Amino acid sequence: MHAHVIEAGQVRQIRDPDAIREAHAAGRHLWVEIGDPSATTEAFLTSTFGVHPLIVEDIFGERSVPKIDEFDTHLYIVVHAIGPARDPLVADVGLLDVVIGDTFVLTQHREGPATGLLLDRLQRNPKLLERGPAWLAHAFIDGLVDRYEPYMNALRQRIDAVEEHVLLRAGLADGKDLLPELFALRRVIQALCRTTDHQRQILRRLSRGDLAQIPDDCRLYFRDVYDHFTRVDEHAEDYKDAITSLVDAYLTVQSNRMNETVKRLTLMSTVLLPLNFIASFYGMNFKNMPELSWPWGRAFAVAEMFALALLVWGWFKTKKWV
Amino acid sequence: MHAHVIEAGQVRQIRDPDAIREAHAAGRHLWVEIGDPSATTEAFLTSTFGVHPLIVEDIFGERSVPKIDEFDTHLYIVVHAIGPARDPLVADVGLLDVVIGDTFVLTQHREGPATGLLLDRLQRNPKLLERGPAWLAHAFIDGLVDRYEPYMNALRQRIDAVEEHVLLRAGLADGKDLLPELFALRRVIQALCRTTDHQRQILRRLSRGDLAQIPDDCRLYFRDVYDHFTRVDEHAEDYKDAITSLVDAYLTVQSNRMNETVKRLTLMSTVLLPLNFIASFYGMNFKNMPELSWPWGRAFAVAEMFALALLVWGWFKTKKWV
Amino acid sequence: MHAHVIEAGQVRQIRDPDAIREAHAAGRHLWVEIGDPSATTEAFLTSTFGVHPLIVEDIFGERSVPKIDEFDTHLYIVVHAIGPARDPLVADVGLLDVVIGDTFVLTQHREGPATGLLLDRLQRNPKLLERGPAWLAHAFIDGLVDRYEPYMNALRQRIDAVEEHVLLRAGLADGKDLLPELFALRRVIQALCRTTDHQRQILRRLSRGDLAQIPDDCRLYFRDVYDHFTRVDEHAEDYKDAITSLVDAYLTVQSNRMNETVKRLTLMSTVLLPLNFIASFYGMNFKNMPELSWPWGRAFAVAEMFALALLVWGWFKTKKWV
Amino acid sequence: MHAHVIEAGQVRQIRDPDAIREAHAAGRHLWVEIGDPSATTEAFLTSTFGVHPLIVEDIFGERSVPKIDEFDTHLYIVVHAIGPARDPLVADVGLLDVVIGDTFVLTQHREGPATGLLLDRLQRNPKLLERGPAWLAHAFIDGLVDRYEPYMNALRQRIDAVEEHVLLRAGLADGKDLLPELFALRRVIQALCRTTDHQRQILRRLSRGDLAQIPDDCRLYFRDVYDHFTRVDEHAEDYKDAITSLVDAYLTVQSNRMNETVKRLTLMSTVLLPLNFIASFYGMNFKNMPELSWPWGRAFAVAEMFALALLVWGWFKTKKWV
Amino acid sequence: MHAHVIEAGQVRQIRDPDAIREAHAAGRHLWVEIGDPSATTEAFLTSTFGVHPLIVEDIFGERSVPKIDEFDTHLYIVVHAIGPARDPLVADVGLLDVVIGDTFVLTQHREGPATGLLLDRLQRNPKLLERGPAWLAHAFIDGLVDRYEPYMNALRQRIDAVEEHVLLRAGLADGKDLLPELFALRRVIQALCRTTDHQRQILRRLSRGDLAQIPDDCRLYFRDVYDHFTRVDEHAEDYKDAITSLVDAYLTVQSNRMNETVKRLTLMSTVLLPLNFIASFYGMNFKNMPELSWPWGRAFAVAEMFALALLVWGWFKTKKWV
Repeated sequence: MHAHVIEAGQVRQIRDPDAIREAHAAGRHLWVEIGDPSATTEAFLTSTFGVHPLIVEDIFGERSVPKIDEFDTHLYIVVHAIGPARDPLVADVGLLDVVIGDTFVLTQHREGPATGLLLDRLQRNPKLLERGPAWLAHAFIDGLVDRYEPYMNALRQRIDAVEEHVLLRAGLADGKDLLPELFALRRVIQALCRTTDHQRQILRRLSRGDLAQIPDDCRLYFRDVYDHFTRVDEHAEDYKDAITSLVDAYLTVQSNRMNETVKRLTLMSTVLLPLNFIASFYGMNFKNMPELSWPWGRAFAVAEMFALALLVWGWFKTKKWV
Repeated sequence: MHAHVIEAGQVRQIRDPDAIREAHAAGRHLWVEIGDPSATTEAFLTSTFGVHPLIVEDIFGERSVPKIDEFDTHLYIVVHAIGPARDPLVADVGLLDVVIGDTFVLTQHREGPATGLLLDRLQRNPKLLERGPAWLAHAFIDGLVDRYEPYMNALRQRIDAVEEHVLLRAGLADGKDLLPELFALRRVIQALCRTTDHQRQILRRLSRGDLAQIPDDCRLYFRDVYDHFTRVDEHAEDYKDAITSLVDAYLTVQSNRMNETVKRLTLMSTVLLPLNFIASFYGMNFKNMPELSWPWGRAFAVAEMFALALLVWGWFKTKKWV
Repeated sequence: MHAHVIEAGQVRQIRDPDAIREAHAAGRHLWVEIGDPSATTEAFLTSTFGVHPLIVEDIFGERSVPKIDEFDTHLYIVVHAIGPARDPLVADVGLLDVVIGDTFVLTQHREGPATGLLLDRLQRNPKLLERGPAWLAHAFIDGLVDRYEPYMNALRQRIDAVEEHVLLRAGLADGKDLLPELFALRRVIQALCRTTDHQRQILRRLSRGDLAQIPDDCRLYFRDVYDHFTRVDEHAEDYKDAITSLVDAYLTVQSNRMNETVKRLTLMSTVLLPLNFIASFYGMNFKNMPELSWPWGRAFAVAEMFALALLVWGWFKTKKWV
Repeated sequence: MHAHVIEAGQVRQIRDPDAIREAHAAGRHLWVEIGDPSATTEAFLTSTFGVHPLIVEDIFGERSVPKIDEFDTHLYIVVHAIGPARDPLVADVGLLDVVIGDTFVLTQHREGPATGLLLDRLQRNPKLLERGPAWLAHAFIDGLVDRYEPYMNALRQRIDAVEEHVLLRAGLADGKDLLPELFALRRVIQALCRTTDHQRQILRRLSRGDLAQIPDDCRLYFRDVYDHFTRVDEHAEDYKDAITSLVDAYLTVQSNRMNETVKRLTLMSTVLLPLNFIASFYGMNFKNMPELSWPWGRAFAVAEMFALALLVWGWFKTKKWV
Repeated sequence: MHAHVIEAGQVRQIRDPDAIREAHAAGRHLWVEIGDPSATTEAFLTSTFGVHPLIVEDIFGERSVPKIDEFDTHLYIVVHAIGPARDPLVADVGLLDVVIGDTFVLTQHREGPATGLLLDRLQRNPKLLERGPAWLAHAFIDGLVDRYEPYMNALRQRIDAVEEHVLLRAGLADGKDLLPELFALRRVIQALCRTTDHQRQILRRLSRGDLAQIPDDCRLYFRDVYDHFTRVDEHAEDYKDAITSLVDAYLTVQSNRMNETVKRLTLMSTVLLPLNFIASFYGMNFKNMPELSWPWGRAFAVAEMFALALLVWGWFKTKKWV
């Protein structure tokens, strides 16, 4: 656990618990990174900052869904952060717990890409902390939300690639079995939709005027974040629709392409069958088959075959079967 | 950046920033086209018209979704404009930012078909600006919304053409592969639905009585625009349904038409197979096959073939398979 | 334009604009049929009855969707009328514009079946006009709504006929290509649902207690109309569901019936193939085939064929394939 | 028309209209069964009990959907009753009209199973009428709602039977054509859902505290009925989902089972074809075919056939096609 | 029926009804397990604790859906408990009835896994009862809700196993008929969704501030339970979606894999057919077929066959059919 405080326009770290307590008692604006759980830390949070036991339990408990809980003197927010993943199927998802008090912001993040980002934000604009905890929390959350965009783009490209494969190659011999990928994509997007939906509701809550911890002028900035994230959420919904219809399309296109092949093969058989019949016909052992002795008999049979094959083919053409 | 002001019933342009500031200070009604972004322009907007930094950021930032944001003294609206496209799959979409103040309207448009339209509107009816900024904004927005209709019609025709192709030719030899077009149409319509839905909510918001910048008598006119746009939105929804069911229908019709072909080919084989069997039968080398020596043996075999073929065909007919 | 007024319990027509103006000024209850658009008429409506320009524009403009608009002193309602059509696919749809003022009802209808109906309603019960404009408007709207029922029944019968065809004949040789009809039906029903949904909302609005032009005792009667129309709307929704699932069922049933045919044809081939093989077998030219010289050799081969055919058939039977 | 009144704890019938009027005027609690429509009855209802003309019209008019209408002094409720049907596809549906006044309950039922039930309810507990009209109405409605359960169970069993048939036999030779039954079931369930949905809304309305005719302690009992009926409504929704997915599953399972058959038949052909080829091969008339003269030539050919058949079969096995 | 009371920090049981009545009259906090129904018990509940007859009826009646009913002085809650099942298809579901009064909690559970759990909860933290009935009820409900998690995990694993089977083996010879399992899963999940949806609404109701029996500080803890259960509910919804799309995917994948087999078999036939034709051709009995007498005639025919087979195969390759 270490706190950040602004001194002479510079970010300074305080690591000593007593010093943190002192600074808090002096009414100075603080940003505290909570760090690893321990009985001491838990007690410190409760005694010094008056954090509700339920918040402490959630911060150190198993990771959960995005949410916003209003307590008497604190606002507890859990937001999802997402990192720029190489493979969108393995999203680098992290959670950031934010507690907004009247003079302090507590944050907790263990995994995920949020760690460096937050300090960077503060260092680039130390005034944020002076302005108030809500402004700092806004900067943190805005930073996390911005990182959704590259992930969404990577996902879009992946879906486009799958769609192109479905349109051009599904059901052909060089078509891959896309079903596992489609199912994996659907699962990822389903989870993403859940998250973005929760997150959007949190941001909408923050951008409305009914939270004591968010001053009115800051609320406009949260509304801006909400507007941006609405786009992310809508893209997620679009991807969900896209993947659902892609699964359907893939299976049907695959089926149709195979049926197309079967149709063409059957066509070939159907052209060959009459020829075969003629050959069998002249293979009958009747005594009384004078054409067998004709000098042009064989040529006549071959001509019959050609004629029949052309006839059948032409008939197919007029029927638009081939 | 240049402003439009009404003088003696005529639209006059002011290009000098100081003159604009003066006219504004004098309380004259202004329409300002913002133009290219620059630090000067941004400062001018904030200092002269008191535009909120978030609006400035949005106006010059990356283009975004339609929205309406209420600030203390301004109303900020982003609407989509759509031009008459040759190919509805390549919609000529532009964005118009409108800021309504108490005595001025600021607009910003870079791409898209809005540019000439706005000036034309004002010149046809210069009184609009005298009447107040809300009336001018109404004229602008009404003009943009009207241009949706030709686009929607072009889209409808395209969908109808695809539908006709599906009904008449899918799965036949002269049927095109419609899947890429159907997928492209779906994507376009999905984006369109998003936009029209946002835009409709903006117009509904404008047509209700809770915005300080819109006077009551002007509100009725916004309600009229809302009514018209509701139709556009509903058409977009209808197109979405239509395209979804067209994809399904296309794939199934294609499959059924191919199966129909396979069925007919199989029918032909099934009629030929017994004939072939008879020919093979009389090709057996048994010594004791007296019919081989009959003078009418061959004719008898051919008669058998004909009879069998007719029998099979007739049986198919009674079963309604052919 | 001509007005209807009640004199001594009889409906009397006034055609002279000045007389109409006089009667209106005298506070008499009037029903005015507006008729063809002209500058004079428009001016008359605005000056005499104080109709808002937006209403005038809508009345004479292009035909639009059902809606209800509340103005300061008027209530403007647009309802759909539907006539008893021979072919439900070509619905005889008309629009009736109704403006309810404090002492008058203005109506406008050009196409459609409403014309005679309205006068008939008034003549059957002239007291309606005396009672107040809301009562007359109720009678008109009630009459239009009643006419939906025969149309809905015709539509139901058409859908039932198509459903029966799908269940009994789709995919057989005497089955028609129902797809164009199904698509046409879907489009008609989709439009119908839009209309009935709008209309139902209008009627709900009329049956609630927040419109100044509708007195409380009349409101109960509008609620009755709303209840009746709710049924129409629900039927329309049911038809929409029915047609959607019919399209699916039609395509799949067609496919299954064709596959059934292919299966039976393949069955025949599969029974014949072993026979053919036996015939080919005894057509081999090996010297050492003693059965060829047996006196019962041929009979033996035929017996083999019969046995094999029965065996294969029996096997299929036990597998429940036939 | 006859009224029921409680005298000394016993239910007594009054059939004389004047006696009914007298009892009503004396403020006694009455339950009146309205019976066949006549001008006298209509006039009696209006004059004696002050029933609104719209209620009278609805009671004697064509049968309609469940609804609840609040009038100044009366509450008018229409509920659906359903009888225990042998065949759930032919539901024995009836309607009960209930009018609740301050001292009386009017009921009307012509068809359906409600008739005996109501009297039975009252006779088992005559105090109900003494307690007030709302309590009697509750007893009636509770009794009707209870009868939904056996019907729902019968429907469930029918659906289960169809589902089992789909899972085990669809597409096999002993599988019935379930499509007509599935479509009939869907139509019945669709209508049922409509009714239960309306009815549930009525019961919810009755169980809330905003109806003057329902005292607060009785309202708790209506809430209990609402809770029970919610289950009926949810079952109806479940059945709707079940039948929709059953139609899909049936058609696809049927298709797959037939394709399975075709696959196996094609397999047989594919095993036989090489054998046939070998037989044809040795049926060629080339002079230079020494194996034809070998003493073991024929046996060799048969061995070839066996080997080839085994090879093909084994290949299929490793490919998991059989 | 036996009551639990806290004495000197220890849980003590009272089994004598009079003693229970006495303790209740003395205002001591009680937890009463109701046990088997009997007229005595029912009377005791009503007379001593003032429980409403409707609650008594529900507690001893047939088991019903989760619900929450607010009575004047009591809060009646029915929650679902679920035990850790070996086979998620046979969920070990139980119901717990909880009545919260001002100084007591009544519970009723007959079947299911709740029995031991409750006592265990109280013994681990006897202060709960001292703190108030709402806190004890919270502990009970929290305990039940926690047990959903292992069940949900077991269900997830089952669905994953089925999904893997669908992706890898459906339609192959070693693929099981998954349809019965999929239908069973869907039914279980459908019921689960109903329950979790009801339960979530109950918990939301408990976590809001409008119930007199739940003090404000306890409400925060119910909100925590609600947050956790929301996840369970969302998982249930996800499973429902997953199973629905799995049924579709299973049937289509099965169909496609079989068609794939048919395609390959047809390919083999199509390669063999020309060879057969060549053999039949040289089996014709024409006199004038000089190649029959060529010494290399047979070899030439075999070469023709090879060449033709290669040609056909190569053609298929370039068409990407194989």
